[in-house]
Amino acid sequence: MDELAAEIRAHYCKVRRQSETLCAGLEPEDLCLQGMPDTSPLKWHLAHTTWFFETFVLKPFHAGYQSFNDCFEYLFNSYYNAVGKQYPRPRRHLLSRPTVREVSAYRQMVDECVLGLLESPGTADCAELCHRLILGLNHEQQHQELMLTDLKYCLSLNPLAPVYNDTPIPASQASPLTFSEFPGGDGEMGCGRAGGQADSVGGFCYDNEGPRHRVWRAPFGLANRLVSNGEYIEFIEAGGYRTPAWWHSDGWATVQSEQWRMPLYWRREGQRYVAFTLHGELEVDPAAPVCHVSLYEAQAFAAWKNLRLCRESEWEQAAAGVAPAGQLWNRLCHHPLAPPANQPQPRQLYGAVWEWTQSAYSAYPGYRAQAGALGEYNGKFMLNQMVLRGGSVATPADHIRATYRNFFYPRDRWQFSGIRLAYDL
Amino acid sequence: MDELAAEIRAHYCKVRRQSETLCAGLEPEDLCLQGMPDTSPLKWHLAHTTWFFETFVLKPFHAGYQSFNDCFEYLFNSYYNAVGKQYPRPRRHLLSRPTVREVSAYRQMVDECVLGLLESPGTADCAELCHRLILGLNHEQQHQELMLTDLKYCLSLNPLAPVYNDTPIPASQASPLTFSEFPGGDGEMGCGRAGGQADSVGGFCYDNEGPRHRVWRAPFGLANRLVSNGEYIEFIEAGGYRTPAWWHSDGWATVQSEQWRMPLYWRREGQRYVAFTLHGELEVDPAAPVCHVSLYEAQAFAAWKNLRLCRESEWEQAAAGVAPAGQLWNRLCHHPLAPPANQPQPRQLYGAVWEWTQSAYSAYPGYRAQAGALGEYNGKFMLNQMVLRGGSVATPADHIRATYRNFFYPRDRWQFSGIRLAYDL
Amino acid sequence: MDELAAEIRAHYCKVRRQSETLCAGLEPEDLCLQGMPDTSPLKWHLAHTTWFFETFVLKPFHAGYQSFNDCFEYLFNSYYNAVGKQYPRPRRHLLSRPTVREVSAYRQMVDECVLGLLESPGTADCAELCHRLILGLNHEQQHQELMLTDLKYCLSLNPLAPVYNDTPIPASQASPLTFSEFPGGDGEMGCGRAGGQADSVGGFCYDNEGPRHRVWRAPFGLANRLVSNGEYIEFIEAGGYRTPAWWHSDGWATVQSEQWRMPLYWRREGQRYVAFTLHGELEVDPAAPVCHVSLYEAQAFAAWKNLRLCRESEWEQAAAGVAPAGQLWNRLCHHPLAPPANQPQPRQLYGAVWEWTQSAYSAYPGYRAQAGALGEYNGKFMLNQMVLRGGSVATPADHIRATYRNFFYPRDRWQFSGIRLAYDL
Amino acid sequence: MDELAAEIRAHYCKVRRQSETLCAGLEPEDLCLQGMPDTSPLKWHLAHTTWFFETFVLKPFHAGYQSFNDCFEYLFNSYYNAVGKQYPRPRRHLLSRPTVREVSAYRQMVDECVLGLLESPGTADCAELCHRLILGLNHEQQHQELMLTDLKYCLSLNPLAPVYNDTPIPASQASPLTFSEFPGGDGEMGCGRAGGQADSVGGFCYDNEGPRHRVWRAPFGLANRLVSNGEYIEFIEAGGYRTPAWWHSDGWATVQSEQWRMPLYWRREGQRYVAFTLHGELEVDPAAPVCHVSLYEAQAFAAWKNLRLCRESEWEQAAAGVAPAGQLWNRLCHHPLAPPANQPQPRQLYGAVWEWTQSAYSAYPGYRAQAGALGEYNGKFMLNQMVLRGGSVATPADHIRATYRNFFYPRDRWQFSGIRLAYDL
Repeated sequence: MDELAAEIRAHYCKVRRQSETLCAGLEPEDLCLQGMPDTSPLKWHLAHTTWFFETFVLKPFHAGYQSFNDCFEYLFNSYYNAVGKQYPRPRRHLLSRPTVREVSAYRQMVDECVLGLLESPGTADCAELCHRLILGLNHEQQHQELMLTDLKYCLSLNPLAPVYNDTPIPASQASPLTFSEFPGGDGEMGCGRAGGQADSVGGFCYDNEGPRHRVWRAPFGLANRLVSNGEYIEFIEAGGYRTPAWWHSDGWATVQSEQWRMPLYWRREGQRYVAFTLHGELEVDPAAPVCHVSLYEAQAFAAWKNLRLCRESEWEQAAAGVAPAGQLWNRLCHHPLAPPANQPQPRQLYGAVWEWTQSAYSAYPGYRAQAGALGEYNGKFMLNQMVLRGGSVATPADHIRATYRNFFYPRDRWQFSGIRLAYDL
Repeated sequence: MDELAAEIRAHYCKVRRQSETLCAGLEPEDLCLQGMPDTSPLKWHLAHTTWFFETFVLKPFHAGYQSFNDCFEYLFNSYYNAVGKQYPRPRRHLLSRPTVREVSAYRQMVDECVLGLLESPGTADCAELCHRLILGLNHEQQHQELMLTDLKYCLSLNPLAPVYNDTPIPASQASPLTFSEFPGGDGEMGCGRAGGQADSVGGFCYDNEGPRHRVWRAPFGLANRLVSNGEYIEFIEAGGYRTPAWWHSDGWATVQSEQWRMPLYWRREGQRYVAFTLHGELEVDPAAPVCHVSLYEAQAFAAWKNLRLCRESEWEQAAAGVAPAGQLWNRLCHHPLAPPANQPQPRQLYGAVWEWTQSAYSAYPGYRAQAGALGEYNGKFMLNQMVLRGGSVATPADHIRATYRNFFYPRDRWQFSGIRLAYDL
Repeated sequence: MDELAAEIRAHYCKVRRQSETLCAGLEPEDLCLQGMPDTSPLKWHLAHTTWFFETFVLKPFHAGYQSFNDCFEYLFNSYYNAVGKQYPRPRRHLLSRPTVREVSAYRQMVDECVLGLLESPGTADCAELCHRLILGLNHEQQHQELMLTDLKYCLSLNPLAPVYNDTPIPASQASPLTFSEFPGGDGEMGCGRAGGQADSVGGFCYDNEGPRHRVWRAPFGLANRLVSNGEYIEFIEAGGYRTPAWWHSDGWATVQSEQWRMPLYWRREGQRYVAFTLHGELEVDPAAPVCHVSLYEAQAFAAWKNLRLCRESEWEQAAAGVAPAGQLWNRLCHHPLAPPANQPQPRQLYGAVWEWTQSAYSAYPGYRAQAGALGEYNGKFMLNQMVLRGGSVATPADHIRATYRNFFYPRDRWQFSGIRLAYDL
Repeated sequence: MDELAAEIRAHYCKVRRQSETLCAGLEPEDLCLQGMPDTSPLKWHLAHTTWFFETFVLKPFHAGYQSFNDCFEYLFNSYYNAVGKQYPRPRRHLLSRPTVREVSAYRQMVDECVLGLLESPGTADCAELCHRLILGLNHEQQHQELMLTDLKYCLSLNPLAPVYNDTPIPASQASPLTFSEFPGGDGEMGCGRAGGQADSVGGFCYDNEGPRHRVWRAPFGLANRLVSNGEYIEFIEAGGYRTPAWWHSDGWATVQSEQWRMPLYWRREGQRYVAFTLHGELEVDPAAPVCHVSLYEAQAFAAWKNLRLCRESEWEQAAAGVAPAGQLWNRLCHHPLAPPANQPQPRQLYGAVWEWTQSAYSAYPGYRAQAGALGEYNGKFMLNQMVLRGGSVATPADHIRATYRNFFYPRDRWQFSGIRLAYDL
């Protein structure tokens, strides 16, 4: 147990610092932006991830803990109805107070209390305490990805096109699109430890990744890399956004009502496509993976190619046994690039962009959400959303695995989301 | 072939007449109502089902066919982009012309041409012709169910509470809720003839029912009857609509925004619940199956019971080999009743109300939509909707089978949709 | 009194019959249309005008009157809060019942009772009874104009372009635009009998036309005819709809959000402008008065001409002493034409189209709405609307006078509304 | 001219400094809030008022002026179409850059250039230059009032209820409501210098205040003080917000749709009313003037009292010859108080709260907007808005006069707007 506590302590310090590092070059004004109801101000993320530890660790386990500000329970609760009411999400940008400085003080106080508690847990249930801390750190890592994607969305709305990261990006090398074939058959998927208490920081998985269960897969082919911008531009120029035949009915309705003509952040400038990125406005690199497409667009592109998106069980079969590596979180580059040529096939399973699957996000057989407020973490979203797999440039390398299930609505485009093709054998 | 043609001819006359019989007691004013964008005026259904034969049978197969009115191609196209543009769905109530009388004339002319063509197909591809006629009749039967549910919705908005069917309804007999257990395991589901040309009227199934494919099912329990109004009232009175814990996140948001407090068509009158039905306003019968609930409500009810909805593969296993029988279309009764006591278990698999499943409506492995406009029939809806199984009081008995997949959005309530409970073994 | 009763009786029969004549060539389906919330189904107008007599004449004055259907008090109340709640206006198209036939029976029963009461008023206050009957008939005449404009709007949404009146329309003769100048100065405006009991059918005026009061007018010039389509086309082709400089701020916002590019009902076909009219689709006649423009458009046109709209006090000075004559209600022609050359100047003060003024609709000094529900007739609308003067092709000739104040919102276009120019001397 | 230049220079320094003083105690986060589309971030106001001088003074008159940032022409243009396109108003909160610090630098650079230009105007048209500087300073004073009202609105949305001004507010002394009577008659109103070049800072008036013109007024009575909170509470508790009879039709619709039950910023706490103010949350003082009511509420209150609001011509007659004095801008108190007992009657004509009139904001006879972009300042808003008179606690004392016309939409409540009663004699 002492070893686990030490491991958690080190991880805690690293992860918490990472959130602050992420905000380092930004101004207080930047940290308060909310570009649409789906996004939150970075200041809010900084406070909410702290609230998570305060609510689920300090209040239940730290004897004599005094809350920083009682009103924060309301202001920084995201969606835990079992904890209490929540300040309306679309209005988070209206909270000029607490200021960025006050949120920093809040973080610091909670950090001190958490580290103190970890040192002297007293009568606390240590296993549960460790479980919640590991959960809280995974939670904060998820929010780190959101901080980048939310920031990108907000900055993109400013005609001054602010640059978050001024490191130059290398040009990508194009490669042909090939496929690997998989036999399918009887098999298993999911994580056997899901929802349980991990005995190491790396042994964690979310409850929605389990239980591990049996599945039958028909044989399938899977692309050896992500779809590139160049390939996607062909779709655009072949009239993809004007041809209903390629689209699901709801997708076509969205194309019409939103007047989509290309991926989010792109604009056409003469013959070129230019995209807003965290590195500023850049010409679209044809060899790099296409990004910021909705599931509707991913599916329409696949239909145009006479192919399909993969199922999550297929993706997991391909990723099983492959160690997470690739273009994951890295402070030098916040934009997806083409894969190195020498990776084993299929390449880019991890990193670069999240891959839309054709699988609805739903409970695996035998899934039960845990009791209490933490049971709201995943289970209540198992409807209307679709699974994405593999992580992106904004995902910490120690926060992704073969069984990891991300989920968004089919229309969502502000995540680093892209396309991997598949077919039935 | 002659035999098939004769069978089709008889079925054609019966099905087409049925649509008109359904409208018999109604006034022209009733046939023009559109209560919300999801519903269509009955006059429009009468014309659209006719348009289907005109477009997919007469125009391609009837040499020298002269269209009744060229503008109808636009007015009565529902969603076939490959055919052409469509008059906006939410505005269908704005078409006073063609009048009901003109639509009747349109039906009659098309019927004459279709029957003539069936008699003398000339050089037409007879197999394809028969296939399209059978498809067109299945299409019309689907619209007959919609005609009843759309009419019910529209009449319910009139404070005069018009009565469609004045036949009295018998009181239902309550019965205890029991479960049957199924072993699961390796198996198959789906229809092996899906999308192909049927050699008999009864041999038809839609393309979305296939291909037949292998699945693995975990063992499960399935309720022996539908959830009753009495059981659902307990949920209401236990605060079900005020307790977020039972709801999916999107469901809870909908309860708040729509201010749902009970099923569609219900209102509270002192201690009683009263419901608008096609038989007029009636006190809710506790023993009869609950109806007009969304998937959100069905799922919340199940969660409150600490149970779940079934998967479509589970339902199909239970229904395999059970002949469709039960409370299906019948001109005397348009409201769901309790099941007879002596039916084999599980009861009410067919009829009474459609049963929400927890399965997203998506393509079976190996599914390909057919080419051309008819490929739009099912495939483009395989996103965002959920599968319902089993048919209802509004489903013709020869229009339901174990593999039949109906689909609606989780929020939809105006269909005859209800709840069957299940659990993991 | 007997003489007044006889005059009212004759007028009652004539006006009530007129509403029915107006609907003569229409189908029940046509009478149920509601093209937007601002419009009502003609069936509803037929019932509401009857409800007015039932509510304000029969219920208070006819001893032992039995209501036709108690629910009608709710269904056919337009906006009289003092009478009770109202069925929501945007949903009036959802009332298939009562049917057209039932509404006819309602009209007939109420007519019999009203005429009976007029014959044998018993103990009723005859002066008040006569006052309310005259008010009710003026009310019905207002609704007759709305019936035509609402019908036109609804039919225009049907791609079949139904024709209401198949009488051909003569071509108009162009004439130069000249102005008459008026000295202004101290004067009076308004009707001295406003809101009082008339001693003849023709002696009536609405309460909002009074009290007659003193005003001071600066000297002004007034156009001798309405603005023509040809002149308005020049404005369109000079980029009027693309140039913010001519528009009020709210007008420009509306042009953008509604994407207005020409008057309501117009479309461009090559070099021509074609308009939907009650006589079918017709090429726009350059010499005829422009019609179906909002105040925003009328004002922008005037600004482009470096002129202005007139004030209602100015219009009334010009019209004082001019007997109402011109292109008023006439069953042969439901579309505005150019004025005859030989009329005294200014021409077209009455008829053809209502003339937008730059005067906000507000209470004259000393105005008090009458007590009770009938006080809601005019007073509560004296905010946010603008005054129009002069009547149109849809106004009965005995329903217009120099002091008559019509009022609509600046964005409204579905009335027969046009433009007369003015300037400061 | 040198004297005028010196006067302007002093006034310029004072007014510009005032905007910054107003923001002194606020954080960068506070300066970026936009609580609704009608409001703007204070940072935006600071930049826009600077843009006004840059656009209308420096660019045309300062030879060799280099713009601070070319993109600001787009970002900080409010509504001048003749200058160019504008960044969408509802999105102003999305501009984290330029930061507060950068906006300060922008202000400083523009100030230096303006003062330099005033010192050495070179070949500039000095009269026009002075005119524009005076206009720009009046413009900035208008925005100072908006800065306070916008800030108040935004802070009110924060559950932490931030305090802008922590100076305590004295209790008000109640006084009876009495009336002064005015004979009316022939007279004049408006400013004779409107739109022209002022020969002193104090000689300025806006173009919408003129031309001075003749009017006729009926005799009227005018309340000797503003309506108090105590009087307004009586209206609330008499069911004022539940009784349609007191409301204009559009007002009643707004009460329903917005669920208004009391003035903006008020909430009920047991038997007390508590209001958010710039001094924090305070119990409502019954003797102080009611504030933050819409015209709809002001008019309904007056109707309930069987009185009316005054016309702007009436207010101006009462104010003519009264020097502006009263509770105007003052850094110690940002909330309206009761009037001192010893003021001459009518009291509170100036200051405390703006007084809604029943006059629509429209052009006086003979009004012409000036040519060019500055002609958009007032003229294009002369539709759909209503006149308010007299200034408020947020109006600088040297920015109000008897002819000053403020204007807002009838539904607006976030200004310091209140009620003065009147009646017809």
